[in-house]
Amino acid sequence: MGVKRQGWEKTTMKILVLGADGYIGWPLCLRLESLGHEVHGFDNYVRRLRVKEVGSNSAIPIAEPDIRNNIFEIRSGSLKYLYELDGYDAIVHLAEQPSAPYSMQNVRFACETVNQNVMGTMNLLYLMKEQNPDAHLVKLGTMGEYGTPSCDIPEGFIEDGPMKGLPFPKQAGSFYHLSKVFDTQCIEFACRTWGLRSTDIMQGIVFGTRTKELNHPDKMTRFDYDQYFGTVINRFCAQAVAEVPLTVYGGGGQTRGFLPLKDSLECLVLAIENPPAHGEYRVFNQFGKIYSVTALAAYIERACRNLGMMARTKAIDNPRIEAEMHHYEPRCEKLRMLGYNPNWEIWEEMEAIIEDLIPYKYHINKKVIYPTTTWK
Amino acid sequence: MGVKRQGWEKTTMKILVLGADGYIGWPLCLRLESLGHEVHGFDNYVRRLRVKEVGSNSAIPIAEPDIRNNIFEIRSGSLKYLYELDGYDAIVHLAEQPSAPYSMQNVRFACETVNQNVMGTMNLLYLMKEQNPDAHLVKLGTMGEYGTPSCDIPEGFIEDGPMKGLPFPKQAGSFYHLSKVFDTQCIEFACRTWGLRSTDIMQGIVFGTRTKELNHPDKMTRFDYDQYFGTVINRFCAQAVAEVPLTVYGGGGQTRGFLPLKDSLECLVLAIENPPAHGEYRVFNQFGKIYSVTALAAYIERACRNLGMMARTKAIDNPRIEAEMHHYEPRCEKLRMLGYNPNWEIWEEMEAIIEDLIPYKYHINKKVIYPTTTWK
Repeated sequence: MGVKRQGWEKTTMKILVLGADGYIGWPLCLRLESLGHEVHGFDNYVRRLRVKEVGSNSAIPIAEPDIRNNIFEIRSGSLKYLYELDGYDAIVHLAEQPSAPYSMQNVRFACETVNQNVMGTMNLLYLMKEQNPDAHLVKLGTMGEYGTPSCDIPEGFIEDGPMKGLPFPKQAGSFYHLSKVFDTQCIEFACRTWGLRSTDIMQGIVFGTRTKELNHPDKMTRFDYDQYFGTVINRFCAQAVAEVPLTVYGGGGQTRGFLPLKDSLECLVLAIENPPAHGEYRVFNQFGKIYSVTALAAYIERACRNLGMMARTKAIDNPRIEAEMHHYEPRCEKLRMLGYNPNWEIWEEMEAIIEDLIPYKYHINKKVIYPTTTWK
Repeated sequence: MGVKRQGWEKTTMKILVLGADGYIGWPLCLRLESLGHEVHGFDNYVRRLRVKEVGSNSAIPIAEPDIRNNIFEIRSGSLKYLYELDGYDAIVHLAEQPSAPYSMQNVRFACETVNQNVMGTMNLLYLMKEQNPDAHLVKLGTMGEYGTPSCDIPEGFIEDGPMKGLPFPKQAGSFYHLSKVFDTQCIEFACRTWGLRSTDIMQGIVFGTRTKELNHPDKMTRFDYDQYFGTVINRFCAQAVAEVPLTVYGGGGQTRGFLPLKDSLECLVLAIENPPAHGEYRVFNQFGKIYSVTALAAYIERACRNLGMMARTKAIDNPRIEAEMHHYEPRCEKLRMLGYNPNWEIWEEMEAIIEDLIPYKYHINKKVIYPTTTWK
């Protein structure tokens, strides 16, 4: 049963990945399988539908479900698979509506987002309580749950003073973020009340196209670049390749934590293979390095120059309501202590994305990048 | 248009009360009307249904909706009334599922509670944004959102140190409480993002039967005493009248803020008539005095002795998972500064409840008081 690796004797784990067809879910399944774990994936494919509905597509083509299933089987259709949680060591919950602007379109999308995310988490917690309270819930949250307070951001809990041990206050910036904050509070409650155990991951913004398992065209993971599902670095890379200006929202001083897809997988594996104690609720802040949007745009320009291309930047009205100049000092120590070491240069990562996008230059629909959904 | 009162020139306000058929909603409508305001009430009567479904009733009989409508008209049926928010100065939102144990019965009731409360608040905020962003949203939250931290509890926001100004951390103790915390975060977001204004009221536990407008049998407000909808003082009074032991949950050291129904109305009126600035989100902690459950049981025994009755107390296993000995120092200064002065003795208030219940001794169904829903 043991899988020898990293000098430790690792035991094969039985792992369920919810949201297995997604940007992170798909390569995570391949990674976990390559590490010798028994991996079951589940997805309802609603993300593919939503991206279509907003008029966009994955810039890098991804295999149709039936082809993906020949590489790694994702269960779908009947929900009955989801109702059998017995025997799993870890349940990785990535099955959420992940876009803030998508949630801010109007009341319908706000309610759809909150409903999917909140009810999904609540149902999962109840199923775990009833069927498998010993399993480790690995839940993807977002650094965005913290907002941008003017103090340093600890990993989940206040570290000193009279409020020591209380959850660090959250300030959500969209209905999507509100749904994630609710998830967090729900999971903490379930651990405290029912004795479940969970790692609640406050993840920074993920970017990139490459992990070592994505070694065949049919294995590629999705690459979104539109105003809803495209996050900033991926969107900038797509804009550079499509030869349209990089759209910097507002002042550009907005500062966040970032990590490449390969690091996201590495961190998730660290969380899965190093579970918390029974009844423990722990929070990992998960990111590699911190950049402002303006700095990212400058790095993209540099990456383009290195590739003999030219990128232009254009400041546009900020569609969001957010601080554009702010303090940002989040901590990220727990994953470092487990061995995570971000070992990359941002412009090299950007070059890799741009190189991977160049063959698909004409797959990029320029019309869906510019933000039309605003917070007002 | 002016209504002379308290030495100030008060203007008649147009006020919408959502949840107008409820324990607080009904007497609040009568109070606001008696103060000269133009009051519109709305209710879907789901509370009456739910109390029936759990096998209980209002110990003090309340008028059927058609009779109530002859006293004060409550709009119901078609939701179209709710979609016309134009012209209101204040919107009082009391239309939520208010019971923690009800939400903890199983996944269905947990989801029903979160769904009703969260979607109700979200839809209301969107309607206000679109139709009447200047209206003052008066939202009933609960002191329970704060949990029982080992530090003092401020009014909504951290007051000093590096986290000054951030929301005070919440620790919900049930899915009901989680839904209320979500409401709070949603409303704060709507004020910060859309410029709405709101008073978010963290209310203590309300008890009692009397307000000066409830001066006729057909005007009485509901009185719940069952395990789901009966809160501790009202439940203890019903148990004393029904001659069954007062059920103290666990150690009885659980300590909370309390206020009589008449004070709840007074405080709500203070909030309504003293609105926040445009775009302001403010939090009022709303309670009169602080007691432990054990102290309340002793006061009930005293009230009974004063009335020539006898009450017995019985400690039972705590159905909830909660701290039974804890620090509890919440602040309640903002309402005091507006003039609120809790001016009553707890045993006298309890005597009044017991006197009002005695004629309805045989309306009390003893079988629905003992807790069967547990947190485990």
